[in-house]
Amino acid sequence: MNNEFNIAVIGLGQIGSYLFNELNNKKKDILNKTGKKINVVAVSAKNKNKKRSFKINNKIFYSNPLEIIKKKKINILFEAIGLSDGISKKIVEMALKNKIHVITPNKALISKHGDYLSKLAEKNKVNLEFEASVGGGIPILRTIKEGLATNKISKVYGILNGTSNYILSEMETTKNSFEDVLKKAQSLGYAEPGNPKLDLNGYDALAKVKILSSLSFNNKISNSKYLMEGIENIEYKDIDIVDQLNYRIKLLGITEIVNNQLFERVHPCLVKKNTYIGNVNGVMNAVILEGKPVGESVLQGEGAGPGPTSSALMSDLLSILRGNIKYPFGISDKKRKKVKIYNINNYSNPLYLRLEVKDKPGVLSTITKQLAKYNISVKRLIQLPDHKKKTASIAIITHDANELNSKKCIKSFRANKNIIKSPVLIRLF
Amino acid sequence: MNNEFNIAVIGLGQIGSYLFNELNNKKKDILNKTGKKINVVAVSAKNKNKKRSFKINNKIFYSNPLEIIKKKKINILFEAIGLSDGISKKIVEMALKNKIHVITPNKALISKHGDYLSKLAEKNKVNLEFEASVGGGIPILRTIKEGLATNKISKVYGILNGTSNYILSEMETTKNSFEDVLKKAQSLGYAEPGNPKLDLNGYDALAKVKILSSLSFNNKISNSKYLMEGIENIEYKDIDIVDQLNYRIKLLGITEIVNNQLFERVHPCLVKKNTYIGNVNGVMNAVILEGKPVGESVLQGEGAGPGPTSSALMSDLLSILRGNIKYPFGISDKKRKKVKIYNINNYSNPLYLRLEVKDKPGVLSTITKQLAKYNISVKRLIQLPDHKKKTASIAIITHDANELNSKKCIKSFRANKNIIKSPVLIRLF
Repeated sequence: MNNEFNIAVIGLGQIGSYLFNELNNKKKDILNKTGKKINVVAVSAKNKNKKRSFKINNKIFYSNPLEIIKKKKINILFEAIGLSDGISKKIVEMALKNKIHVITPNKALISKHGDYLSKLAEKNKVNLEFEASVGGGIPILRTIKEGLATNKISKVYGILNGTSNYILSEMETTKNSFEDVLKKAQSLGYAEPGNPKLDLNGYDALAKVKILSSLSFNNKISNSKYLMEGIENIEYKDIDIVDQLNYRIKLLGITEIVNNQLFERVHPCLVKKNTYIGNVNGVMNAVILEGKPVGESVLQGEGAGPGPTSSALMSDLLSILRGNIKYPFGISDKKRKKVKIYNINNYSNPLYLRLEVKDKPGVLSTITKQLAKYNISVKRLIQLPDHKKKTASIAIITHDANELNSKKCIKSFRANKNIIKSPVLIRLF
Repeated sequence: MNNEFNIAVIGLGQIGSYLFNELNNKKKDILNKTGKKINVVAVSAKNKNKKRSFKINNKIFYSNPLEIIKKKKINILFEAIGLSDGISKKIVEMALKNKIHVITPNKALISKHGDYLSKLAEKNKVNLEFEASVGGGIPILRTIKEGLATNKISKVYGILNGTSNYILSEMETTKNSFEDVLKKAQSLGYAEPGNPKLDLNGYDALAKVKILSSLSFNNKISNSKYLMEGIENIEYKDIDIVDQLNYRIKLLGITEIVNNQLFERVHPCLVKKNTYIGNVNGVMNAVILEGKPVGESVLQGEGAGPGPTSSALMSDLLSILRGNIKYPFGISDKKRKKVKIYNINNYSNPLYLRLEVKDKPGVLSTITKQLAKYNISVKRLIQLPDHKKKTASIAIITHDANELNSKKCIKSFRANKNIIKSPVLIRLF
């Protein structure tokens, strides 16, 4: 049996660098726990001379990662570049074809090419591990694949994007605008300085939802028409209004099986302040699973940053070193089924609406008429006049409203000349 | 490679019966996930004719479980009797010696004989799995052994006994006495009708703490002098008083490394109402781990009952079927070290004290004098007179108080004739 494992680390950004140090510092611990010796024999990075906490040894550095596979005997490869395609996909593909185990935190790659890559891993009898792609340090994928292995999971939801959660929490606490808080998040390293878009528009959370669905329900990764909304349009005003109604706004990722159909979505939600999920603040991530017979399980932890991510990458490494050769998605590719996608137009749910209107007689009546036309009934309504501007904010909590109807209703509001801004719609959870 | 596994289930109480049904119902799912076929070929129970949801097949029933090992070819044995010694220990011992994998939810057995039994398992190259012994359906042991495998864990704590937590929550909500709520818990099946003692005096939680310590810190199971207090002496009065101070009372199990020494304890704690742990109510269990580099991780789920327990037992089964032969405590028995035990007398912590006193001049002054003598300084003091009885309750929150000093002080309070009941002491968390 092979007791020495050669390792390559591709990408030496924040995560790759942290991992590289961990691999070197924990050699003895790993030997204790697995009986296996590891050696980092190759690294690759776009910019060799970037400032790092360690000096790169020339003997193990390759500017082209594909060279590594040709020139060195590698057993396990870490992909820490992070693209959904291009060199990230190429190096993972090449590694698997050469019977090299792959570990990656890359949710973009897995949520796009996971089906293909897992098939490749199975065919070549190596592992493709991606624990770090969802929930940072929370071992959520391992928990679904192993800890809750024989449960019938019906729903998984949670706070999957630490950046969005930090921004929403901070807006509430500081009463600052989205723009101001985003700048702070960027200066603290919680949001990408260049392009925070994928965190804020729901894309990052949706990639994680797709991975969670596949593992929980044993289906192929969906590429359906989905409901993906981010937090870019949330104003402090909304946070303030819902606060008075005892709610908080959270960006949730949700996946569930409804009538044997898969319903995946990411959007801001109004959650009650006294619920568990309403109290997960800051950069924390939390995942809640509903399963039988286990009941409700909750996992919470730091969702981002090189420390937690590295913890997850190392757990994948130990799993491989212990000889746990496993299907990347828990069951064989052949047994993973395509599921029917739930038609979002059939979805009914209470809504929060905020309309900015001209403050004059008859406006409220035209609004309630429009709501009634689309079968949307009002549960609570608050009118907040701004006397200086002669405008008012009208905040409405509705009873269950059909998604298609509410789309049509919002469209009709946009045509209403007394409504002076595009309406805000947030779903209740 | 062996693709069929013969299984024996020893004990058909609540848990064993639920498990038996799960094993039969999930055969296909297990085949899908592991490629292995399972057959339950033997069961044993004290009372064959007890009312169960299924009829016991005579061909697989053995009144003496030890016979099973002699007469049948068994690969995996579930021990679901639950004693720390006697037949529970005997059957596990015999199974391991005969190279049969063992799965058990038995925390009494593992916390007492875990070192010996894990050595036996290692020697015979089979698994000894006990995920279900801690935290019911929460895959906490697997998370420590695998999901957080290379983290340096410094502290683990949480709500480990669902019965105690249910009683404390219910006392707060209903304002009923401990005795009344205990009766309700028994009628709902949350507490043993005959002997709830092990749940309520902290023993059950301490067994779990010992298992958590061993896995988190890689030490042998401790059998130290410990701090074990239950909830039997908590009165509604205490819940009411601390409520006004914005605290809740929770029975916590805590293990941590202090100056390279192991400090394990179970006792009621005052926890702030706005903390995570302060909001885990009812029969829920929750475990919080502090580790590097992962940061703080939280796991929460239903802590008891045959469903969650069975979920954990099945996850152990799948781990074995997938061929994950592992050290029961994560590392080899030889590498698990004996740790020095922290001397509880050196522990300093703020305290809540409640004294029932005669309501007459000078009493408060003798109390504060006694406190001062033992270096215990008062942070808050509330006096609640009962004019009818001419008595008063004095509730005190102290600054950090040394454990040895506070023991001496309580002793001196007992000798104070103006203090009419044994003082209540609850530590702050």
